[in-house]
Amino acid sequence: MEIFKEIKPLKAFLKEKTPAATIGLVPTMGALHHGHLSLIEASKRENALTVSTIFVNPAQFNNPEDLKKYPRTLERDCEMLRQAGCQVVFAPEVTTLYEHEPTVTFDFGTLDKILEGKFRPGHFSGVALVVSKLFHIVNPTTAYFGQKDFQQFKIIEKLVEELKFDLQLKMMPIIREPDGLALSSRNKRLSEPERKKAALLFRSLTEAKKLLIRGEKIFNVKEIVNQNYKSVDGVKLEYFELANIENLSPAETVTNQTILLMAAYVGEVRLIDNLLMEE
Amino acid sequence: MEIFKEIKPLKAFLKEKTPAATIGLVPTMGALHHGHLSLIEASKRENALTVSTIFVNPAQFNNPEDLKKYPRTLERDCEMLRQAGCQVVFAPEVTTLYEHEPTVTFDFGTLDKILEGKFRPGHFSGVALVVSKLFHIVNPTTAYFGQKDFQQFKIIEKLVEELKFDLQLKMMPIIREPDGLALSSRNKRLSEPERKKAALLFRSLTEAKKLLIRGEKIFNVKEIVNQNYKSVDGVKLEYFELANIENLSPAETVTNQTILLMAAYVGEVRLIDNLLMEE
Repeated sequence: MEIFKEIKPLKAFLKEKTPAATIGLVPTMGALHHGHLSLIEASKRENALTVSTIFVNPAQFNNPEDLKKYPRTLERDCEMLRQAGCQVVFAPEVTTLYEHEPTVTFDFGTLDKILEGKFRPGHFSGVALVVSKLFHIVNPTTAYFGQKDFQQFKIIEKLVEELKFDLQLKMMPIIREPDGLALSSRNKRLSEPERKKAALLFRSLTEAKKLLIRGEKIFNVKEIVNQNYKSVDGVKLEYFELANIENLSPAETVTNQTILLMAAYVGEVRLIDNLLMEE
Repeated sequence: MEIFKEIKPLKAFLKEKTPAATIGLVPTMGALHHGHLSLIEASKRENALTVSTIFVNPAQFNNPEDLKKYPRTLERDCEMLRQAGCQVVFAPEVTTLYEHEPTVTFDFGTLDKILEGKFRPGHFSGVALVVSKLFHIVNPTTAYFGQKDFQQFKIIEKLVEELKFDLQLKMMPIIREPDGLALSSRNKRLSEPERKKAALLFRSLTEAKKLLIRGEKIFNVKEIVNQNYKSVDGVKLEYFELANIENLSPAETVTNQTILLMAAYVGEVRLIDNLLMEE
């Protein structure tokens, strides 16, 4: 496995391999878990060369404390990637991707103002910026993202469609712990009791889905989810919404095109999860 | 010369030529003149393949009347490009580059709020959007732009730098009529008397430059330019500014890094011009 910290040698290496080789890109912020590895596996199945990037992107953190506390485990990450058969790692310093303070920002109309965007102003602009950089540096055939960040995937889909990036996007399913908790690098920050409480996100989502399938009204289901959260100490629901998977507009009726999305604090750690009505 | 209206066949054609061939891109809105042809010549000198695009980009017109009246001369343009030795033309319909109403917009901090940006809100976001599309479709080695749209060049430079587009940019000098009028597709819209008056832009810029070289104060020079415009019927100065060529911030002293920039109406036609202190 080749590890690069600088852009030029990475580009030179990739230029030598391509155009014969298809390139799969798996962008990550490190602190890898099996969710990331499932993206690597998908990329390896479909491409001659798999490139993973490890970069905690300051531009997408609206909360400086969250940026500071974001887990960083580069050596362990590289070992996991090596074992998973990833061929190339790009792990740049902040100053390599951001030579100056960035001045370009993106606006996605409604899509970056709702759900996560409402609580994390500037987050998706920062995502779009770093993803644009990585796409231009690696020039992948296909880029792989996890469904856990569903809204992020919709943002990147929009970016690729409207800027006409020459690549494919693939979204891979959420990987969960036995109790349903979606794998996330932020789970590492949970204490043992918090870790147990964190299963509430997926439990609420599955309960809500069952109730909706039975025909319960959206308003009542939201109320039940709210009550679930209120009954547990040390957790706080930030939002629970039903949206259309196409453009994430609020769902007023439930169909197989509906997604349930949730963000909640467990202690001081902010977690997100989602569930498709169709799954 | 190959002419494409659709993205897929253009990409297939270019993919067959590259990676052996370097590609020069000359993006235009058509209504070509010798300014454009000088970009084609530069591209031909430096690349195996020259691609010109002809597309009147709705997203960069803040004024619908200006968009409607923008000259469209596709057949004549193609003939000029053929004679200039351009090998590939991409002239898509609006719906080919914009399948839906665009939702992504760009913000460049101060750079798109001053000078042209102050009078044409949204203009540079539209420029950045279409240029991103064209860069991704053509994937050029080098893209060529004219100095007449100096601020546009700075915007695109920022876009390429911050999104890390894998290409070079080149700015080519302004081509002028014998009386100094900068070549522009919009000149076609001037009546004969207006055409004569339009020389005022360059005349004012050269006079201002001379006065500044002699040590005249910026404030006084601006006043003289203002008076020049007031003494001619049917012309109206929109702005005359001195800026730093690096980031277009207002110049408070004159150096060889200063540029004089001007926008003015001649009749109903809005023209721009600029002059480097160093030229």
